Amino acid sequence: MTATGTSFELIATDGEARRGRLTTAHGDINTPAFMPVGTAGTVKAMMPEDVAATGAEIILGNTYHLMLRPTAERVAKLGGLHRFMNWPKPILTDSGGYQVFSLSKRRTISEEGVIFQSHIDGAKIELTPERSIEIQNFLGSNITMVLDECTEWPITEKDARKSMELSMRWAARCKEAFEARPGYGLFGIVQGSMYRELRHESAAKLIETGFDGYAVGGLAIGESQDVMFEVLDYTVPSLPQERPHYLMGVGKPGDIVGAVQRGIDMFDCVIPTRSGRTGQAFVRGGSLNLRNAKHTEDGRPLDAACTCRVCTNYSRAYLHHLIKAGEMLAGMLLTLHNLHYYQALMSGMRNAIESGMLNNFVATFDSEQENGAVVSETI
Amino acid sequence: MTATGTSFELIATDGEARRGRLTTAHGDINTPAFMPVGTAGTVKAMMPEDVAATGAEIILGNTYHLMLRPTAERVAKLGGLHRFMNWPKPILTDSGGYQVFSLSKRRTISEEGVIFQSHIDGAKIELTPERSIEIQNFLGSNITMVLDECTEWPITEKDARKSMELSMRWAARCKEAFEARPGYGLFGIVQGSMYRELRHESAAKLIETGFDGYAVGGLAIGESQDVMFEVLDYTVPSLPQERPHYLMGVGKPGDIVGAVQRGIDMFDCVIPTRSGRTGQAFVRGGSLNLRNAKHTEDGRPLDAACTCRVCTNYSRAYLHHLIKAGEMLAGMLLTLHNLHYYQALMSGMRNAIESGMLNNFVATFDSEQENGAVVSETI
Repeated sequence: MTATGTSFELIATDGEARRGRLTTAHGDINTPAFMPVGTAGTVKAMMPEDVAATGAEIILGNTYHLMLRPTAERVAKLGGLHRFMNWPKPILTDSGGYQVFSLSKRRTISEEGVIFQSHIDGAKIELTPERSIEIQNFLGSNITMVLDECTEWPITEKDARKSMELSMRWAARCKEAFEARPGYGLFGIVQGSMYRELRHESAAKLIETGFDGYAVGGLAIGESQDVMFEVLDYTVPSLPQERPHYLMGVGKPGDIVGAVQRGIDMFDCVIPTRSGRTGQAFVRGGSLNLRNAKHTEDGRPLDAACTCRVCTNYSRAYLHHLIKAGEMLAGMLLTLHNLHYYQALMSGMRNAIESGMLNNFVATFDSEQENGAVVSETI
Repeated sequence: MTATGTSFELIATDGEARRGRLTTAHGDINTPAFMPVGTAGTVKAMMPEDVAATGAEIILGNTYHLMLRPTAERVAKLGGLHRFMNWPKPILTDSGGYQVFSLSKRRTISEEGVIFQSHIDGAKIELTPERSIEIQNFLGSNITMVLDECTEWPITEKDARKSMELSMRWAARCKEAFEARPGYGLFGIVQGSMYRELRHESAAKLIETGFDGYAVGGLAIGESQDVMFEVLDYTVPSLPQERPHYLMGVGKPGDIVGAVQRGIDMFDCVIPTRSGRTGQAFVRGGSLNLRNAKHTEDGRPLDAACTCRVCTNYSRAYLHHLIKAGEMLAGMLLTLHNLHYYQALMSGMRNAIESGMLNNFVATFDSEQENGAVVSETI
């Protein structure tokens, strides 16, 4: 393996779970870590200083969105993404691949890369491994992700193999194109869908190429939590233990807890932010749907034990009122609370791992989910 | 005149302009003061602590909106408006009259009051002087406004007189219904449209009844700035000098500066907040329309001399990007900047009055408006 651009220190382990610290040019990230998603150069509905105040030490930026608007070249001209969006802490950028496959129109995949139509103006755009690395470099990303093909589920093993092998060739080209420098890292992405052998082959190929961190891709695409955990059970042990493990696009609180138990160090997901904008609040034992009329006169905070600015200052009745009145503050406050909830969950797990008490932590979490006074309210 | 619920101290004068301090149960307000509008229990797109950080010492709540949703009784049950919306500083509430006349459907005015249909659900609702006072009491308002009839412009003198006389009878009924207590005041509203004699009669009637403060109503309804200033020129001198003077619903920066010169102490207006949500930023010498493509690559702050969190951290290019991407943060940041601009303007005038330099301040303001590098960009 090559010298790392980012460095990773393992501080403690508890079973398969790990307590670590990832060091980048813009600061350290304590792991297990949750990365709020800053799609288009903003964590939606949040001031960046408020994102940091929830405990977030790193956010994710979306290459696909930023390459289309305002364009990576423009961000570079304006001083890079950290400065552009006023987020001085570490940033991880995805490769653009996932959104090309989920948002764009008329995709054509070849060995060279993918040609797609912008969902904004229909412009024809090419994204190759080399171009993805170039864009992420323009953005100034601390952690660059390799371009991979995102498969759907279900998929045959044959198709999954073909796709995985293409992604591994793209990963090697990304490594070639990436300019290593201190504090800036490149992560590979294990693919292979729900097939054990493919996952192992993929991991082996990535390790041969050598990356600063290893992500598990191709999950959270509709499979059950059991299947996701099974894939992690056989995939994570095949990753280098001295490098960070990142589970992309995950997930609900219970997904994250289970993945930490299986040796995952990093997560990103739009759930806390998107849910906040649609009226859902995560609380111990489940979630609340603040659109529900039952909250109309409820003077209680979202979660009496939560220490966030929302729970210490506002009632469920007020949040319900804001939603009914169509006020932006509803999304702002619920996003803030949800991000605080996620960061408190990660902080709780980090402490539990350090003291060898993760099983207790998880038992409490599970019993709250199963028996908690709060029933999950779907939206 | 009766004993005051709120107290007002005149600290300095400079020509007709006054530097004062209004004391309420929830704190002091340094005047001249600008009150951001918190329509439905939130200053739109703002965390309340961020509103306070701009320098705002009082906000305005809209009785009409709050009586319809979540209802005044519910706000009272939840601890009053200060607690409901997490704004511990003073609150002034309007009477509901203005929005009844501008937003509701099928109004019927009688001596008793006004019956209207809610713009939300069509419900038939009665608002009388007594009910308006009761609602504002439920909300816990520090400064309660009398219910008045809002006339349109132009209007004949005969119709303006009829309306003014009704408003004066309603004002007396409001005074009767208002329960005086320390730190909570009731303000009368001078009406009479653009007719000098009516304004003087209205002021005299209000003084006879006796209020803690005197507002000038019925302006900012489409008349020119010259006409507005003319009305102030003959109306403000007829108000008690030892009580605060409040110009309702005003206005643009230049309107406020001219009104302060004419002895007005308090202002409220949706312009800084509403403009912020539609992409307009107030800056020295004019305003910027951040929707304009010319800002696409402009790395400069909105106003290089502004000390707000927006100007110290973000470029015009970033704000333009947020607007194009439809991001909530655009409205959040521009509202924050605009409120800071308004509060800095008020603070500048307070300092100028204290040092007898208001004319200099206004000359600089005017020359920036006329010759500034920044041309006003309409939206």
